[in-house]
Amino acid sequence: MQSDSPHVNRRSFLKTGLGGAVGTLAALGSVSTADSQNTDPMKDRPEVLFFDVNETLLDLRPMKASVSEALGGRENLLPLWFTTMLQYSLVVTVADRYANFIDIGIATLQMVAGSNGIRLSEADARKAVEPMSSLPPHPEVSDALRSLKNAGYRMFTLTNSSKAGISTQMKNSGLGEFFADFLTVEEIGIYKPATHVYRWAARRAGVKTQNCMLIAAHGWDVAGALWADMRAAFLARAGQQLYPLAPEPEIIAPDLAKATEALVAASSGSGGPR
Amino acid sequence: MQSDSPHVNRRSFLKTGLGGAVGTLAALGSVSTADSQNTDPMKDRPEVLFFDVNETLLDLRPMKASVSEALGGRENLLPLWFTTMLQYSLVVTVADRYANFIDIGIATLQMVAGSNGIRLSEADARKAVEPMSSLPPHPEVSDALRSLKNAGYRMFTLTNSSKAGISTQMKNSGLGEFFADFLTVEEIGIYKPATHVYRWAARRAGVKTQNCMLIAAHGWDVAGALWADMRAAFLARAGQQLYPLAPEPEIIAPDLAKATEALVAASSGSGGPR
Repeated sequence: MQSDSPHVNRRSFLKTGLGGAVGTLAALGSVSTADSQNTDPMKDRPEVLFFDVNETLLDLRPMKASVSEALGGRENLLPLWFTTMLQYSLVVTVADRYANFIDIGIATLQMVAGSNGIRLSEADARKAVEPMSSLPPHPEVSDALRSLKNAGYRMFTLTNSSKAGISTQMKNSGLGEFFADFLTVEEIGIYKPATHVYRWAARRAGVKTQNCMLIAAHGWDVAGALWADMRAAFLARAGQQLYPLAPEPEIIAPDLAKATEALVAASSGSGGPR
Repeated sequence: MQSDSPHVNRRSFLKTGLGGAVGTLAALGSVSTADSQNTDPMKDRPEVLFFDVNETLLDLRPMKASVSEALGGRENLLPLWFTTMLQYSLVVTVADRYANFIDIGIATLQMVAGSNGIRLSEADARKAVEPMSSLPPHPEVSDALRSLKNAGYRMFTLTNSSKAGISTQMKNSGLGEFFADFLTVEEIGIYKPATHVYRWAARRAGVKTQNCMLIAAHGWDVAGALWADMRAAFLARAGQQLYPLAPEPEIIAPDLAKATEALVAASSGSGGPR
């Protein structure tokens, strides 16, 4: 089931020395010779970090109450709704019919309700997804972003949320100060993980794709970034899985604090921020 | 929440006279003037019918036993698995990393298992999805396809299944004889509902896209066909929903028998097959 892509584990980036904090992968033995010969740690430090937002930085759990209420108390339907929302973000992408993420969320919430015999009006669905704009950060996120900024990293959001959505989310979460800019797929009308999104983001940041790293809690996002020739870190938050048919990212951590340890170590190992 | 697309209900194609069998839509009043002026019923008969296969023609229920066994008996996770499979068919499409539908099904079954604390090997996941190649037709399908063929319709599959997959499915279900050819997305390496798929299929059949009709039990497939300028019929099978942000198809029927009534009436209303 392992992909034969040349991207698999081509970088050893600080996987050693992290103990149990960062997952050690069964495939680690396959780290390429090119990496073993790389003796300059600086060479491995990403120039720019892109952050997925929903679930990666912000905690989706406060939506559970409102969404499960809209679904007649059936909290077990939440993953189905969120997956259907992601599915339809790609449905509109491959049909070139962009709609904003919240509107897709509302439409798919109505669909999941309907499939389960629950009649849900658009207005009630809209009300149920409203908390998305005021999600709190996961507990470790603010400190971790501050450490990364202090270590000299230039950071951007790269989110499926709309322009208005990400502005509100950043304002309400207090995370805005850490980012050079808020990039969102709305600017190009194509959802992640389309290859174009990652390459466009790198150009917007003025760096080569391969000098960027995406940090995300979703297997599809990590896969898309790696396939686009970005580097990637996966936050293995509750219920999140890597995609078995994609390359493995160089960092797999339980949360952003642990991923930050790896990124800051890379920085200081190279003599500090640049 | 209604789309303002020009496609919405632009054709009135036999919606009247079908009683409760074919859903009458709230938006029916918006049928365009162009249609009302159309007095030649022949003009409205599609030249070619494309059929989605999984769930539309074939009954997925026999998979429930094997898949829910793989998921530790949690049958309620089946829709999440199938939606995740569809999501990832589009993930690989937007990243141009085609993999066949069964392999995506296996990988996503492992992911859904993992998210729910169930360890599932690739071999066991493969075994669980094996029944996909020998699904039985829904009970009304054989007779309906025979009626459509007798009415002179030229028919093709248009499926996300692989070439080998659709051949086996058609052989095992006994439906193969009704189709001029089995078209599958594997030929182009892009999954439905990408616009390109429907336009490619029309070219393969040698007809204009707007003279083709897709018949499918999935909202995303109907949406993709309509957005690509095909016509569409939706089979509202159990648990299936139209996408609220897409145009409405001209036929909405509970099963293929009822959709066939509409299509055959169009045929005989025009003086028989051509």
